[in-house]
Amino acid sequence: MVSTTPAYRITDLFAERAKNLAPPTYGTELSKIVTVSFAYGLADPILFPHTDLAAASAVVLAEEAPIALNYGPPSAQLYEQIILRLQAKGIAADRDRLIIGYGSGQILGLLPDVFVEPGDVVIVEGPTFLGVVTRFVHAGARIITIPVDELGMDVDALEVTLNDLKKQGIRPRFIYTIPTFHNPTGATMPLFRRQKLVALAAEYGVLIVEDDAYSDLRFRGETMPSLATLDQEGWVLYVSTFSKIIAPGIRLGWACGDATIIERLAMFKSEGTVGPFVSHVVARYCATGKLDNHIQELIACYKHKCNLLLEAIAQEFPSDVVALRPDGGFFVWCKLPPDISAKALLMAASEHGISFLPGTRCYANGQGDDAIRLAFSFQPTQKIVEGIATLGSVLRGLR
Amino acid sequence: MVSTTPAYRITDLFAERAKNLAPPTYGTELSKIVTVSFAYGLADPILFPHTDLAAASAVVLAEEAPIALNYGPPSAQLYEQIILRLQAKGIAADRDRLIIGYGSGQILGLLPDVFVEPGDVVIVEGPTFLGVVTRFVHAGARIITIPVDELGMDVDALEVTLNDLKKQGIRPRFIYTIPTFHNPTGATMPLFRRQKLVALAAEYGVLIVEDDAYSDLRFRGETMPSLATLDQEGWVLYVSTFSKIIAPGIRLGWACGDATIIERLAMFKSEGTVGPFVSHVVARYCATGKLDNHIQELIACYKHKCNLLLEAIAQEFPSDVVALRPDGGFFVWCKLPPDISAKALLMAASEHGISFLPGTRCYANGQGDDAIRLAFSFQPTQKIVEGIATLGSVLRGLR
Repeated sequence: MVSTTPAYRITDLFAERAKNLAPPTYGTELSKIVTVSFAYGLADPILFPHTDLAAASAVVLAEEAPIALNYGPPSAQLYEQIILRLQAKGIAADRDRLIIGYGSGQILGLLPDVFVEPGDVVIVEGPTFLGVVTRFVHAGARIITIPVDELGMDVDALEVTLNDLKKQGIRPRFIYTIPTFHNPTGATMPLFRRQKLVALAAEYGVLIVEDDAYSDLRFRGETMPSLATLDQEGWVLYVSTFSKIIAPGIRLGWACGDATIIERLAMFKSEGTVGPFVSHVVARYCATGKLDNHIQELIACYKHKCNLLLEAIAQEFPSDVVALRPDGGFFVWCKLPPDISAKALLMAASEHGISFLPGTRCYANGQGDDAIRLAFSFQPTQKIVEGIATLGSVLRGLR
Repeated sequence: MVSTTPAYRITDLFAERAKNLAPPTYGTELSKIVTVSFAYGLADPILFPHTDLAAASAVVLAEEAPIALNYGPPSAQLYEQIILRLQAKGIAADRDRLIIGYGSGQILGLLPDVFVEPGDVVIVEGPTFLGVVTRFVHAGARIITIPVDELGMDVDALEVTLNDLKKQGIRPRFIYTIPTFHNPTGATMPLFRRQKLVALAAEYGVLIVEDDAYSDLRFRGETMPSLATLDQEGWVLYVSTFSKIIAPGIRLGWACGDATIIERLAMFKSEGTVGPFVSHVVARYCATGKLDNHIQELIACYKHKCNLLLEAIAQEFPSDVVALRPDGGFFVWCKLPPDISAKALLMAASEHGISFLPGTRCYANGQGDDAIRLAFSFQPTQKIVEGIATLGSVLRGLR
């Protein structure tokens, strides 16, 4: 062996895709001390069914440890429980059409592996849940943004875009949409738009990825059929999660759709199926039948918080800030008047310990400085009232 | 909208990499009724610390539910516990050099994302743990196999290969090795080979991926320093897991090494960090200080089972079947005489309800029909004795 080592560096060993990656920037709070954060869609910790989950854990560890703690697939009962919930929504679900992942985010993050070559077109909403869309961007997708209004995605604009792309010989890979209690706008797509969206997917041969994290949390209005329910031809991949109705910290989400897609998602999920232990615990909890009652409690709580937030906004914000009233979910979207920038507002608000998500963090195309997203899910009621009062005075101070 | 839909197919939307994937073939047991399976390295379910995990779960859900059940990073205490364990082995560990994943398999599966472009050389052992190596193959790596003998990887053969490759201008991305209680041979690399391996990595500028799932389970002989302990220049990525010392079903493994590698592994772990709930439970369990005692119990049990297996082999197998005696771990590797094929043996054994891993399932280069791997970890002692007696008579019957 030679005694002098050439100046080898580990970084030279990296694949091209790993060389110039920047670590993801999570919502770095501008202020060191955030008193009231409306920034994140965190669940209200008061509502976690921790006693029932503790009971389920105890039973699993006492009775099912040999299976729940060894190598193996997730609990068969968990698949059954999720299939039952999907079928209750009118979604064609069975074992071959279902994959369970570590949160819906994991499954959404696997979509580029299955569908995206660099340069392929992926259609998203603007605004949208950028945490997921960033994954598509990193995979080299060419992102096209379709505007969202108070009725969700503008499907007429989508039709024009699909038609334009078709003329150029381009077939988009998929359309990523959050049709119910949209993140960040809270908007819910009415039936006529849903029907047209599903018809467009079939007409242009484009997959719809329906992200449905919030639909169980409806405060008002009538239940809308999911896109997956309306779809007769298999063009919808339905994605959902236990994060908002049980707890995010258990990390369990799923996708339901065409079996060939599910099979491929499973192949790119390199660590295999989700952990036996946590899947058995959650299956046990679901099997108690308590989840539907629990969801009713969540609805009552989030409805109350949403109303409180909207009332506080009506009282405290300048009248030319327009808040969209959601029918469910975690978020209120506020359109700012032309003279106020979301980024400037965040900067000023952070001086007073208030945080929120500026609209710029919700668009893949750089828009969004004219709006902000307020999450009412996490903060206790008292803080919501205080926080909005402070934010109102910051808003007025900017004038 | 036109009334006729062109014959679009979902499969047309797949990226090239997803088009012709075959689902992984797990160890399909040949016989419908397997009475005794020596095939898999499953943990012994009798030894799961289920009572202590239940206590930890109860405490977490009673005291830490707001954090353990919400979005967020894994338990900080879990990082600390793992760092302490690594430091006790003489491995330079800190928060920036550590990533926790859903089993070590997940982290090993992410290596190609960071290191492998199609055609890049990856060096593996023959035999090896093919479950991981298959991931490298799927990523398009050019696999080069270095032989393993009863002292682990033949590092002289490795040196020749590295030198040959260097002359061709080829710098391998990494060397995947299991130096302690090797899977499948059970072999443990002695110090002089370890030192040479680490020196070669530095000399040729090649990363070593040290898979160390079993080293805590030593029955006899003195503790060997890990490659990571010997490495002074950062060329070792050390990978380990709680699967063999707590339970596989909790799905927690980790990698420790150069911070730039850890950072990139984290970026390609698309679902983010591991779940808060399970990480808090395991951290609580570790914090009780019971894990080291538990490991002593595991060692006593697996030592007993290993001895039982070896004694049964000595009694029941033809004398020209050579069993390697491991100093720890889960496996005994048996070299078959030239007239007996592992595949033929498996076929015949399965007729009698016996299963094991044929050596062909342990090589990336098609070798291995001259050996079998017997896992003694999972079966109860009675079954081990019965199973080997049956396998012995099958072996004799093939003559």
